Amino acid sequence: MKLLRYGPVGQEKPGCLDADGAVRDLSGQLPDITAASLSAEALAGLKAIDVSSLPVVQNPGRLGTPYADVGKFICVGLNFSDHAAETGAAVPEEPILFTKWSEPTGPNDPIVMPRGSVKTDWEVELGVVIGTKARYVSLEDALKHVAGYCVVNDVSEREYQIERGGTWDKGKGCDTFGPVGPWLVTSDDVSDPQSLGMWLEVNGKRFQDGNTRTMIFDVAYLVHYISQFTTLMPGDLISTGTPPGVGLGQKPPLFLKAGDVIRLGIEGLGEQEQTVHEWREDLLR
Amino acid sequence: MKLLRYGPVGQEKPGCLDADGAVRDLSGQLPDITAASLSAEALAGLKAIDVSSLPVVQNPGRLGTPYADVGKFICVGLNFSDHAAETGAAVPEEPILFTKWSEPTGPNDPIVMPRGSVKTDWEVELGVVIGTKARYVSLEDALKHVAGYCVVNDVSEREYQIERGGTWDKGKGCDTFGPVGPWLVTSDDVSDPQSLGMWLEVNGKRFQDGNTRTMIFDVAYLVHYISQFTTLMPGDLISTGTPPGVGLGQKPPLFLKAGDVIRLGIEGLGEQEQTVHEWREDLLR
Repeated sequence: MKLLRYGPVGQEKPGCLDADGAVRDLSGQLPDITAASLSAEALAGLKAIDVSSLPVVQNPGRLGTPYADVGKFICVGLNFSDHAAETGAAVPEEPILFTKWSEPTGPNDPIVMPRGSVKTDWEVELGVVIGTKARYVSLEDALKHVAGYCVVNDVSEREYQIERGGTWDKGKGCDTFGPVGPWLVTSDDVSDPQSLGMWLEVNGKRFQDGNTRTMIFDVAYLVHYISQFTTLMPGDLISTGTPPGVGLGQKPPLFLKAGDVIRLGIEGLGEQEQTVHEWREDLLR
Repeated sequence: MKLLRYGPVGQEKPGCLDADGAVRDLSGQLPDITAASLSAEALAGLKAIDVSSLPVVQNPGRLGTPYADVGKFICVGLNFSDHAAETGAAVPEEPILFTKWSEPTGPNDPIVMPRGSVKTDWEVELGVVIGTKARYVSLEDALKHVAGYCVVNDVSEREYQIERGGTWDKGKGCDTFGPVGPWLVTSDDVSDPQSLGMWLEVNGKRFQDGNTRTMIFDVAYLVHYISQFTTLMPGDLISTGTPPGVGLGQKPPLFLKAGDVIRLGIEGLGEQEQTVHEWREDLLR
Protein backbone atom coordinates (compact mmCIF):
# COMPACT_ATOMS: atom_id res chain seq x y z
CA MET A 1 0.00 0.00 0.00
CA LYS A 2 1.20 3.49 -0.83
CA LEU A 3 0.09 5.93 1.82
CA LEU A 4 0.32 9.69 1.28
CA ARG A 5 -0.99 13.01 2.49
CA TYR A 6 -2.15 15.77 0.15
CA GLY A 7 -3.13 19.40 0.57
CA PRO A 8 -1.61 22.67 1.77
CA VAL A 9 0.93 22.75 4.60
CA GLY A 10 -0.81 21.98 7.88
CA GLN A 11 -4.07 21.00 6.18
CA GLU A 12 -3.04 17.69 4.63
CA LYS A 13 -5.62 14.95 4.18
CA PRO A 14 -4.88 11.24 4.24
CA GLY A 15 -4.87 9.32 1.00
CA CYS A 16 -3.38 6.44 -0.87
CA LEU A 17 -2.33 5.65 -4.40
CA ASP A 18 -4.45 3.22 -6.40
CA ALA A 19 -3.23 0.69 -8.95
CA ASP A 20 -3.58 3.24 -11.75
CA GLY A 21 -1.51 5.87 -9.93
CA ALA A 22 -4.49 8.01 -8.93
CA VAL A 23 -4.85 9.46 -5.44
CA ARG A 24 -7.75 8.10 -3.41
CA ASP A 25 -9.14 9.85 -0.36
CA LEU A 26 -8.84 8.13 3.03
CA SER A 27 -10.54 10.92 5.01
CA GLY A 28 -13.59 8.73 5.58
CA GLN A 29 -11.42 6.06 7.16
CA LEU A 30 -9.14 8.07 9.46
CA PRO A 31 -8.56 11.76 10.26
CA ASP A 32 -4.87 11.66 9.36
CA ILE A 33 -1.98 9.26 8.86
CA THR A 34 0.10 9.40 12.03
CA ALA A 35 2.59 7.27 13.92
CA ALA A 36 -0.42 5.55 15.49
CA SER A 37 -1.51 4.44 12.01
CA LEU A 38 1.71 2.48 11.53
CA SER A 39 1.25 -0.45 13.91
CA ALA A 40 0.71 -3.85 12.34
CA GLU A 41 -2.92 -3.80 13.50
CA ALA A 42 -3.66 -0.32 12.18
CA LEU A 43 -1.97 -1.06 8.86
CA ALA A 44 -3.90 -4.33 8.55
CA GLY A 45 -7.09 -2.30 8.93
CA LEU A 46 -6.02 0.06 6.16
CA LYS A 47 -4.97 -2.75 3.86
CA ALA A 48 -8.37 -4.40 4.28
CA ILE A 49 -10.00 -1.40 2.62
CA ASP A 50 -11.10 -1.84 -1.01
CA VAL A 51 -9.10 1.04 -2.48
CA SER A 52 -11.22 1.07 -5.65
CA SER A 53 -14.22 2.01 -3.52
CA LEU A 54 -12.58 5.19 -2.21
CA PRO A 55 -13.25 8.60 -3.79
CA VAL A 56 -10.71 9.60 -6.45
CA VAL A 57 -9.03 12.94 -5.72
CA GLN A 58 -8.96 14.70 -9.08
CA ASN A 59 -6.44 17.41 -8.23
CA PRO A 60 -4.53 16.41 -5.12
CA GLY A 61 -2.10 19.31 -5.52
CA ARG A 62 0.79 19.48 -3.10
CA LEU A 63 1.91 16.35 -1.24
CA GLY A 64 2.97 16.54 2.38
CA THR A 65 5.09 14.10 4.33
CA PRO A 66 3.37 10.70 4.04
CA TYR A 67 2.66 10.65 7.77
CA ALA A 68 2.11 13.59 10.02
CA ASP A 69 4.35 13.15 13.00
CA VAL A 70 7.88 12.11 12.18
CA GLY A 71 9.63 11.41 15.48
CA LYS A 72 13.36 10.98 15.88
CA PHE A 73 15.01 11.56 12.49
CA ILE A 74 18.21 9.52 12.74
CA CYS A 75 20.60 9.36 9.81
CA VAL A 76 23.41 7.01 8.92
CA GLY A 77 26.63 8.41 7.50
CA LEU A 78 28.97 6.86 4.93
CA ASN A 79 26.83 3.73 4.64
CA PHE A 80 27.51 2.89 0.98
CA SER A 81 30.84 1.31 0.22
CA ASP A 82 31.10 3.21 -3.08
CA HIS A 83 30.16 6.55 -1.42
CA ALA A 84 32.73 6.10 1.35
CA ALA A 85 35.36 5.56 -1.33
CA GLU A 86 34.19 8.71 -3.16
CA THR A 87 34.64 10.92 -0.09
CA GLY A 88 38.02 9.42 0.72
CA ALA A 89 36.72 8.14 4.06
CA ALA A 90 37.51 4.71 5.41
CA VAL A 91 34.65 2.20 5.50
CA PRO A 92 33.28 2.60 9.04
CA GLU A 93 33.50 -0.35 11.43
CA GLU A 94 30.16 0.52 12.98
CA PRO A 95 27.31 2.65 11.62
CA ILE A 96 27.94 6.39 11.94
CA LEU A 97 24.81 8.02 13.33
CA PHE A 98 23.72 11.62 13.44
CA THR A 99 20.48 13.52 13.84
CA LYS A 100 18.46 15.72 11.52
CA TRP A 101 16.80 18.62 13.34
CA SER A 102 14.77 19.81 10.32
CA GLU A 103 11.02 19.64 10.44
CA PRO A 104 10.36 17.19 7.60
CA THR A 105 8.82 18.73 4.49
CA GLY A 106 6.82 17.40 1.56
CA PRO A 107 8.62 15.67 -1.30
CA ASN A 108 8.30 18.61 -3.70
CA ASP A 109 8.50 21.51 -1.26
CA PRO A 110 11.17 24.14 -1.93
CA ILE A 111 14.70 23.76 -0.64
CA VAL A 112 15.79 27.04 0.90
CA MET A 113 19.52 27.42 1.37
CA PRO A 114 20.62 28.90 4.70
CA ARG A 115 21.70 32.54 4.58
CA GLY A 116 25.02 32.85 2.78
CA SER A 117 25.35 29.11 2.21
CA VAL A 118 27.82 28.14 -0.52
CA LYS A 119 28.01 24.39 0.10
CA THR A 120 24.45 23.05 0.03
CA ASP A 121 24.46 19.49 -1.29
CA TRP A 122 22.10 16.62 -2.11
CA GLU A 123 21.81 12.98 -0.96
CA VAL A 124 19.15 10.53 -2.13
CA GLU A 125 18.44 8.06 0.68
CA LEU A 126 16.15 5.21 1.61
CA GLY A 127 14.01 6.20 4.59
CA VAL A 128 12.92 3.46 6.99
CA VAL A 129 9.77 4.19 8.98
CA ILE A 130 9.40 2.49 12.36
CA GLY A 131 5.95 1.03 13.00
CA THR A 132 6.30 -0.58 16.42
CA LYS A 133 8.55 0.07 19.39
CA ALA A 134 12.01 -1.41 18.86
CA ARG A 135 14.23 -1.87 21.91
CA TYR A 136 17.15 -4.29 21.83
CA VAL A 137 15.66 -6.09 18.86
CA SER A 138 17.52 -8.99 17.34
CA LEU A 139 18.73 -8.93 13.78
CA GLU A 140 16.15 -11.60 12.95
CA ASP A 141 13.24 -9.58 14.32
CA ALA A 142 14.37 -6.14 13.18
CA LEU A 143 12.33 -5.88 9.97
CA LYS A 144 9.13 -6.74 11.86
CA HIS A 145 9.37 -3.25 13.39
CA VAL A 146 9.47 -1.50 10.01
CA ALA A 147 6.12 -0.13 8.80
CA GLY A 148 7.45 0.87 5.42
CA TYR A 149 9.86 2.83 3.29
CA CYS A 150 10.07 6.25 1.66
CA VAL A 151 12.41 8.51 -0.28
CA VAL A 152 14.44 11.06 1.72
CA ASN A 153 16.65 13.83 0.38
CA ASP A 154 19.23 14.24 3.15
CA VAL A 155 20.05 17.81 2.11
CA SER A 156 23.35 18.87 3.71
CA GLU A 157 25.38 22.03 4.16
CA ARG A 158 28.96 20.76 3.93
CA GLU A 159 30.63 23.79 5.49
CA TYR A 160 28.35 23.61 8.51
CA GLN A 161 28.69 19.82 8.64
CA ILE A 162 32.44 19.54 8.38
CA GLU A 163 34.13 22.89 9.01
CA ARG A 164 32.23 24.29 12.00
CA GLY A 165 33.42 21.96 14.75
CA GLY A 166 31.78 19.13 16.59
CA THR A 167 29.26 16.74 15.13
CA TRP A 168 27.61 16.67 11.72
CA ASP A 169 24.24 17.76 13.12
CA LYS A 170 24.93 21.46 12.37
CA GLY A 171 24.94 20.85 8.62
CA LYS A 172 22.01 18.45 8.44
CA GLY A 173 19.19 20.17 10.32
CA CYS A 174 18.66 23.44 8.45
CA ASP A 175 15.08 24.40 7.60
CA THR A 176 13.73 22.52 4.52
CA PHE A 177 16.64 20.03 4.61
CA GLY A 178 14.38 16.99 5.10
CA PRO A 179 12.01 16.29 2.18
CA VAL A 180 10.18 12.99 2.82
CA GLY A 181 7.89 11.11 0.44
CA PRO A 182 5.95 11.10 -1.85
CA TRP A 183 4.65 7.88 -0.32
CA LEU A 184 5.10 5.61 2.62
CA VAL A 185 5.20 2.23 0.89
CA THR A 186 4.31 -0.44 3.39
CA SER A 187 6.86 -3.21 3.97
CA ASP A 188 4.75 -5.91 2.35
CA ASP A 189 4.99 -4.00 -0.94
CA VAL A 190 8.80 -3.85 -0.84
CA SER A 191 9.98 -7.36 -1.61
CA ASP A 192 13.65 -6.66 -0.90
CA PRO A 193 14.82 -3.34 0.60
CA GLN A 194 18.39 -4.30 -0.36
CA SER A 195 17.89 -4.31 -4.11
CA LEU A 196 16.32 -0.94 -4.87
CA GLY A 197 17.74 1.31 -7.56
CA MET A 198 18.13 4.93 -6.45
CA TRP A 199 19.03 8.02 -8.45
CA LEU A 200 19.27 11.79 -8.28
CA GLU A 201 19.51 14.44 -11.02
CA VAL A 202 20.25 18.15 -10.84
CA ASN A 203 18.92 20.18 -13.76
CA GLY A 204 18.43 16.97 -15.72
CA LYS A 205 21.99 15.68 -15.25
CA ARG A 206 22.25 12.41 -13.38
CA PHE A 207 24.67 12.58 -10.47
CA GLN A 208 23.64 9.63 -8.30
CA ASP A 209 22.82 6.23 -9.74
CA GLY A 210 23.11 3.60 -7.06
CA ASN A 211 21.41 0.67 -5.45
CA THR A 212 20.66 -0.22 -1.84
CA ARG A 213 22.64 -3.43 -2.38
CA THR A 214 25.91 -1.54 -1.81
CA MET A 215 24.87 -0.52 1.70
CA ILE A 216 27.56 -1.45 4.21
CA PHE A 217 25.02 -1.99 7.00
CA ASP A 218 21.63 -3.14 5.73
CA VAL A 219 18.22 -2.04 6.98
CA ALA A 220 17.77 -4.94 9.37
CA TYR A 221 21.20 -4.37 10.89
CA LEU A 222 20.58 -0.64 11.31
CA VAL A 223 17.27 -1.14 13.15
CA HIS A 224 18.90 -3.79 15.35
CA TYR A 225 21.97 -1.62 15.94
CA ILE A 226 20.23 1.65 16.77
CA SER A 227 17.84 -0.17 19.10
CA GLN A 228 20.84 -1.00 21.33
CA PHE A 229 21.40 2.71 22.01
CA THR A 230 17.89 4.12 22.22
CA THR A 231 14.35 2.88 21.88
CA LEU A 232 12.94 3.41 18.41
CA MET A 233 9.30 4.46 18.55
CA PRO A 234 6.47 4.39 16.00
CA GLY A 235 7.02 7.26 13.59
CA ASP A 236 10.78 7.41 14.02
CA LEU A 237 12.55 7.69 10.68
CA ILE A 238 15.97 6.28 9.83
CA SER A 239 17.66 7.66 6.74
CA THR A 240 20.10 5.00 5.69
CA GLY A 241 22.85 6.80 3.81
CA THR A 242 23.55 7.79 0.24
CA PRO A 243 25.26 6.18 -2.77
CA PRO A 244 28.07 7.96 -4.70
CA GLY A 245 27.56 11.14 -6.68
CA VAL A 246 27.02 13.88 -4.11
CA GLY A 247 28.23 17.39 -4.93
CA LEU A 248 31.09 17.13 -2.44
CA GLY A 249 32.39 14.12 -4.36
CA GLN A 250 32.63 15.90 -7.74
CA LYS A 251 36.03 17.01 -8.99
CA PRO A 252 35.98 19.92 -8.35
CA PRO A 253 33.13 19.87 -5.78
CA LEU A 254 29.85 21.22 -7.08
CA PHE A 255 27.14 22.67 -4.86
CA LEU A 256 23.55 23.79 -5.33
CA LYS A 257 22.59 27.31 -6.40
CA ALA A 258 19.30 29.17 -6.59
CA GLY A 259 17.10 27.94 -9.42
CA ASP A 260 18.53 24.44 -9.53
CA VAL A 261 15.96 21.69 -9.85
CA ILE A 262 16.62 18.40 -8.08
CA ARG A 263 14.83 15.21 -9.05
CA LEU A 264 15.37 11.99 -7.17
CA GLY A 265 13.72 8.65 -6.73
CA ILE A 266 13.93 5.11 -5.47
CA GLU A 267 12.59 2.08 -7.32
CA GLY A 268 8.98 1.50 -6.28
CA LEU A 269 8.97 4.37 -3.76
CA GLY A 270 8.26 7.28 -6.12
CA GLU A 271 10.02 10.51 -7.00
CA GLN A 272 10.69 13.92 -5.47
CA GLU A 273 11.32 17.23 -7.25
CA GLN A 274 12.58 20.33 -5.47
CA THR A 275 13.58 23.79 -6.60
CA VAL A 276 16.47 25.42 -4.76
CA HIS A 277 16.08 28.98 -3.46
CA GLU A 278 18.23 31.61 -1.84
CA TRP A 279 17.18 32.13 1.76
CA ARG A 280 13.79 33.83 2.00
CA GLU A 281 11.76 33.98 5.18
CA ASP A 282 8.45 33.70 3.32
CA LEU A 283 9.39 30.30 1.91
CA LEU A 284 9.75 28.89 5.42
CA ARG A 285 7.10 27.80 7.89
CA MET B 1 7.03 31.55 38.40
CA LYS B 2 7.95 27.92 38.97
CA LEU B 3 5.90 25.68 36.72
CA LEU B 4 5.76 21.93 37.25
CA ARG B 5 3.77 18.81 36.45
CA TYR B 6 2.88 16.20 39.07
CA GLY B 7 1.38 12.73 38.95
CA PRO B 8 2.08 9.31 37.47
CA VAL B 9 3.81 8.95 34.09
CA GLY B 10 1.43 10.00 31.34
CA GLN B 11 -1.17 11.36 33.79
CA GLU B 12 0.66 14.47 34.98
CA LYS B 13 -1.36 17.53 36.01
CA PRO B 14 -0.17 21.11 35.70
CA GLY B 15 0.90 22.97 38.81
CA CYS B 16 3.18 25.59 40.20
CA LEU B 17 5.17 26.17 43.34
CA ASP B 18 3.94 28.81 45.77
CA ALA B 19 6.08 31.14 47.88
CA ASP B 20 6.11 28.59 50.72
CA GLY B 21 7.31 25.76 48.50
CA ALA B 22 3.92 24.04 48.29
CA VAL B 23 2.52 22.70 45.03
CA ARG B 24 -0.60 24.47 43.78
CA ASP B 25 -2.92 22.95 41.19
CA LEU B 26 -3.26 24.69 37.83
CA SER B 27 -5.74 22.17 36.37
CA GLY B 28 -8.52 24.74 36.55
CA GLN B 29 -6.48 27.13 34.43
CA LEU B 30 -5.15 24.90 31.67
CA PRO B 31 -5.28 21.18 30.81
CA ASP B 32 -1.51 20.78 30.77
CA ILE B 33 1.71 22.77 30.49
CA THR B 34 2.89 22.40 26.91
CA ALA B 35 5.07 24.24 24.41
CA ALA B 36 2.03 26.37 23.62
CA SER B 37 2.00 27.53 27.25
CA LEU B 38 5.46 29.05 26.88
CA SER B 39 4.80 32.06 24.65
CA ALA B 40 5.12 35.49 26.24
CA GLU B 41 1.36 35.93 26.02
CA ALA B 42 0.52 32.55 27.53
CA LEU B 43 3.07 33.01 30.32
CA ALA B 44 1.71 36.50 31.04
CA GLY B 45 -1.70 34.91 31.50
CA LEU B 46 -0.29 32.36 33.95
CA LYS B 47 1.67 34.98 35.87
CA ALA B 48 -1.49 37.06 36.30
CA ILE B 49 -3.04 34.27 38.36
CA ASP B 50 -3.13 34.79 42.12
CA VAL B 51 -1.21 31.66 43.10
CA SER B 52 -2.45 31.84 46.70
CA SER B 53 -5.99 31.34 45.40
CA LEU B 54 -5.15 28.00 43.77
CA PRO B 55 -5.84 24.68 45.52
CA VAL B 56 -2.88 23.31 47.48
CA VAL B 57 -1.87 19.79 46.43
CA GLN B 58 -1.20 17.98 49.67
CA ASN B 59 0.65 14.97 48.26
CA PRO B 60 1.84 15.78 44.77
CA GLY B 61 3.88 12.57 44.58
CA ARG B 62 6.03 12.09 41.51
CA LEU B 63 7.03 15.06 39.40
CA GLY B 64 7.12 14.79 35.63
CA THR B 65 9.00 16.97 33.19
CA PRO B 66 7.86 20.56 33.84
CA TYR B 67 6.26 20.78 30.41
CA ALA B 68 4.75 17.95 28.42
CA ASP B 69 6.23 18.16 24.96
CA VAL B 70 9.97 18.71 24.86
CA GLY B 71 10.90 19.25 21.20
CA LYS B 72 14.44 19.18 19.87
CA PHE B 73 16.78 18.32 22.76
CA ILE B 74 20.05 19.94 21.67
CA CYS B 75 23.09 19.73 23.90
CA VAL B 76 26.31 21.69 24.02
CA GLY B 77 29.58 19.86 24.62
CA LEU B 78 32.67 21.04 26.48
CA ASN B 79 31.10 24.41 27.25
CA PHE B 80 32.78 25.09 30.59
CA SER B 81 36.38 26.20 30.48
CA ASP B 82 37.19 24.24 33.64
CA HIS B 83 35.44 21.06 32.32
CA ALA B 84 37.26 21.23 28.99
CA ALA B 85 40.53 21.35 30.91
CA GLU B 86 39.44 18.36 33.01
CA THR B 87 38.80 16.15 29.98
CA GLY B 88 42.04 17.19 28.31
CA ALA B 89 40.13 18.68 25.38
CA ALA B 90 41.01 22.01 23.82
CA VAL B 91 38.59 24.88 24.42
CA PRO B 92 36.33 24.76 21.34
CA GLU B 93 36.34 27.69 18.93
CA GLU B 94 32.62 27.29 18.28
CA PRO B 95 29.96 25.53 20.34
CA ILE B 96 30.00 21.75 19.95
CA LEU B 97 26.43 20.58 19.42
CA PHE B 98 24.88 17.15 19.65
CA THR B 99 21.43 15.70 20.11
CA LYS B 100 19.78 13.74 22.89
CA TRP B 101 17.36 11.10 21.60
CA SER B 102 16.02 10.16 25.06
CA GLU B 103 12.41 10.81 25.87
CA PRO B 104 12.81 13.27 28.76
CA THR B 105 11.91 11.90 32.17
CA GLY B 106 10.91 13.43 35.48
CA PRO B 107 13.57 14.86 37.79
CA ASN B 108 13.48 11.94 40.22
CA ASP B 109 12.69 9.09 37.86
CA PRO B 110 15.08 6.13 37.88
CA ILE B 111 18.19 6.06 35.72
CA VAL B 112 18.42 2.70 34.03
CA MET B 113 21.81 1.83 32.64
CA PRO B 114 21.84 0.27 29.16
CA ARG B 115 22.44 -3.47 29.07
CA GLY B 116 26.02 -4.24 29.96
CA SER B 117 27.00 -0.60 30.40
CA VAL B 118 30.16 0.00 32.39
CA LYS B 119 30.67 3.71 31.68
CA THR B 120 27.44 5.50 32.62
CA ASP B 121 28.25 9.02 33.84
CA TRP B 122 26.55 12.15 35.19
CA GLU B 123 26.47 15.81 34.08
CA VAL B 124 24.55 18.58 35.85
CA GLU B 125 23.48 21.15 33.26
CA LEU B 126 21.44 24.31 32.89
CA GLY B 127 18.49 23.65 30.57
CA VAL B 128 17.22 26.55 28.47
CA VAL B 129 13.59 26.27 27.35
CA ILE B 130 12.61 28.06 24.14
CA GLY B 131 9.34 29.97 24.35
CA THR B 132 9.02 31.58 20.93
CA LYS B 133 10.35 30.67 17.49
CA ALA B 134 14.00 31.68 17.12
CA ARG B 135 15.42 31.90 13.59
CA TYR B 136 18.57 33.92 12.91
CA VAL B 137 18.10 35.84 16.12
CA SER B 138 20.63 38.46 17.08
CA LEU B 139 22.70 38.19 20.21
CA GLU B 140 20.77 41.15 21.62
CA ASP B 141 17.36 39.55 21.06
CA ALA B 142 18.30 35.98 21.95
CA LEU B 143 17.11 35.91 25.56
CA LYS B 144 13.68 37.22 24.53
CA HIS B 145 13.08 33.77 23.04
CA VAL B 146 13.79 31.97 26.33
CA ALA B 147 10.71 31.02 28.35
CA GLY B 148 12.71 29.79 31.32
CA TYR B 149 15.30 27.51 32.81
CA CYS B 150 15.46 24.07 34.38
CA VAL B 151 17.89 21.49 35.71
CA VAL B 152 19.00 18.72 33.30
CA ASN B 153 21.09 15.67 34.09
CA ASP B 154 22.82 14.97 30.78
CA VAL B 155 23.39 11.31 31.62
CA SER B 156 26.02 9.85 29.27
CA GLU B 157 27.44 6.47 28.38
CA ARG B 158 31.08 7.25 27.67
CA GLU B 159 31.90 4.06 25.80
CA TYR B 160 28.97 4.58 23.44
CA GLN B 161 29.76 8.30 23.17
CA ILE B 162 33.47 8.07 22.47
CA GLU B 163 34.49 4.54 21.51
CA ARG B 164 31.72 3.45 19.12
CA GLY B 165 32.49 5.66 16.11
CA GLY B 166 30.82 8.72 14.69
CA THR B 167 29.09 11.39 16.70
CA TRP B 168 28.39 11.60 20.41
CA ASP B 169 24.66 10.98 19.92
CA LYS B 170 25.02 7.22 20.54
CA GLY B 171 26.04 7.77 24.16
CA LYS B 172 23.59 10.51 25.03
CA GLY B 173 20.20 9.21 23.95
CA CYS B 174 19.74 6.01 25.94
CA ASP B 175 16.39 5.50 27.68
CA THR B 176 16.12 7.49 30.97
CA PHE B 177 19.20 9.59 30.12
CA GLY B 178 17.32 12.91 30.16
CA PRO B 179 15.86 13.86 33.56
CA VAL B 180 14.38 17.38 33.34
CA GLY B 181 13.03 19.52 36.18
CA PRO B 182 11.75 19.73 38.91
CA TRP B 183 10.55 23.11 37.70
CA LEU B 184 10.54 25.36 34.70
CA VAL B 185 11.50 28.68 36.30
CA THR B 186 10.37 31.50 34.05
CA SER B 187 13.04 33.89 32.81
CA ASP B 188 11.76 36.84 34.86
CA ASP B 189 12.58 34.85 38.00
CA VAL B 190 16.19 34.20 36.95
CA SER B 191 17.97 37.51 37.34
CA ASP B 192 21.23 36.36 35.73
CA PRO B 193 21.53 32.95 34.07
CA GLN B 194 25.32 33.42 34.07
CA SER B 195 25.79 33.41 37.83
CA LEU B 196 24.03 30.27 39.00
CA GLY B 197 25.77 27.81 41.29
CA MET B 198 25.38 24.18 40.19
CA TRP B 199 26.35 20.97 41.94
CA LEU B 200 26.04 17.20 41.78
CA GLU B 201 26.61 14.50 44.41
CA VAL B 202 26.79 10.72 44.12
CA ASN B 203 25.99 8.83 47.33
CA GLY B 204 26.44 12.06 49.27
CA LYS B 205 29.89 12.88 47.91
CA ARG B 206 30.09 16.11 45.99
CA PHE B 207 31.66 15.68 42.56
CA GLN B 208 30.51 18.76 40.67
CA ASP B 209 30.54 22.23 42.21
CA GLY B 210 30.50 24.84 39.50
CA ASN B 211 28.84 28.00 38.32
CA THR B 212 27.33 29.04 35.02
CA ARG B 213 29.77 31.96 34.99
CA THR B 214 32.51 29.66 33.63
CA MET B 215 30.51 28.83 30.51
CA ILE B 216 32.60 29.45 27.40
CA PHE B 217 29.52 30.37 25.31
CA ASP B 218 26.75 31.94 27.37
CA VAL B 219 23.01 31.30 27.05
CA ALA B 220 22.36 34.29 24.79
CA TYR B 221 25.20 33.30 22.48
CA LEU B 222 24.01 29.69 22.29
CA VAL B 223 20.44 30.64 21.33
CA HIS B 224 21.80 33.08 18.75
CA TYR B 225 24.31 30.55 17.44
CA ILE B 226 22.00 27.53 17.14
CA SER B 227 19.37 29.70 15.44
CA GLN B 228 21.79 30.17 12.53
CA PHE B 229 21.68 26.41 11.79
CA THR B 230 18.08 25.49 12.49
CA THR B 231 14.92 27.18 13.69
CA LEU B 232 14.38 26.78 17.41
CA MET B 233 10.72 26.21 18.20
CA PRO B 234 8.65 26.62 21.38
CA GLY B 235 9.41 23.67 23.62
CA ASP B 236 12.88 23.03 22.26
CA LEU B 237 15.38 22.46 25.05
CA ILE B 238 19.06 23.41 25.00
CA SER B 239 21.27 21.75 27.59
CA THR B 240 24.22 24.07 27.95
CA GLY B 241 27.11 21.91 29.10
CA THR B 242 28.53 20.74 32.39
CA PRO B 243 31.14 22.06 34.84
CA PRO B 244 34.08 19.91 36.03
CA GLY B 245 33.68 16.78 38.13
CA VAL B 246 32.14 14.17 35.85
CA GLY B 247 33.06 10.53 36.37
CA LEU B 248 35.20 10.44 33.25
CA GLY B 249 37.32 13.24 34.74
CA GLN B 250 38.17 11.38 37.97
CA LYS B 251 41.58 9.82 38.33
CA PRO B 252 41.00 6.96 37.80
CA PRO B 253 37.65 7.41 36.02
CA LEU B 254 34.63 6.49 38.12
CA PHE B 255 31.31 5.44 36.69
CA LEU B 256 27.84 4.80 38.04
CA LYS B 257 26.72 1.43 39.38
CA ALA B 258 23.38 -0.01 40.42
CA GLY B 259 22.14 1.47 43.70
CA ASP B 260 23.99 4.75 43.38
CA VAL B 261 21.96 7.81 44.29
CA ILE B 262 22.58 11.01 42.35
CA ARG B 263 21.52 14.39 43.71
CA LEU B 264 22.00 17.53 41.68
CA GLY B 265 20.74 21.06 41.61
CA ILE B 266 21.10 24.57 40.31
CA GLU B 267 20.66 27.72 42.38
CA GLY B 268 17.02 28.78 42.25
CA LEU B 269 16.01 25.97 39.89
CA GLY B 270 15.54 23.14 42.37
CA GLU B 271 17.01 19.70 42.83
CA GLN B 272 16.83 16.26 41.27
CA GLU B 273 17.44 12.86 42.87
CA GLN B 274 17.80 9.66 40.88
CA THR B 275 18.59 6.08 41.78
CA VAL B 276 20.68 4.12 39.31
CA HIS B 277 19.53 0.67 38.20
CA GLU B 278 20.84 -2.19 36.13
CA TRP B 279 18.86 -2.53 32.93
CA ARG B 280 15.33 -3.76 33.57
CA GLU B 281 12.57 -3.60 31.01
CA ASP B 282 9.89 -2.94 33.62
CA LEU B 283 11.60 0.30 34.70
CA LEU B 284 11.24 1.71 31.19
CA ARG B 285 8.24 3.18 29.44
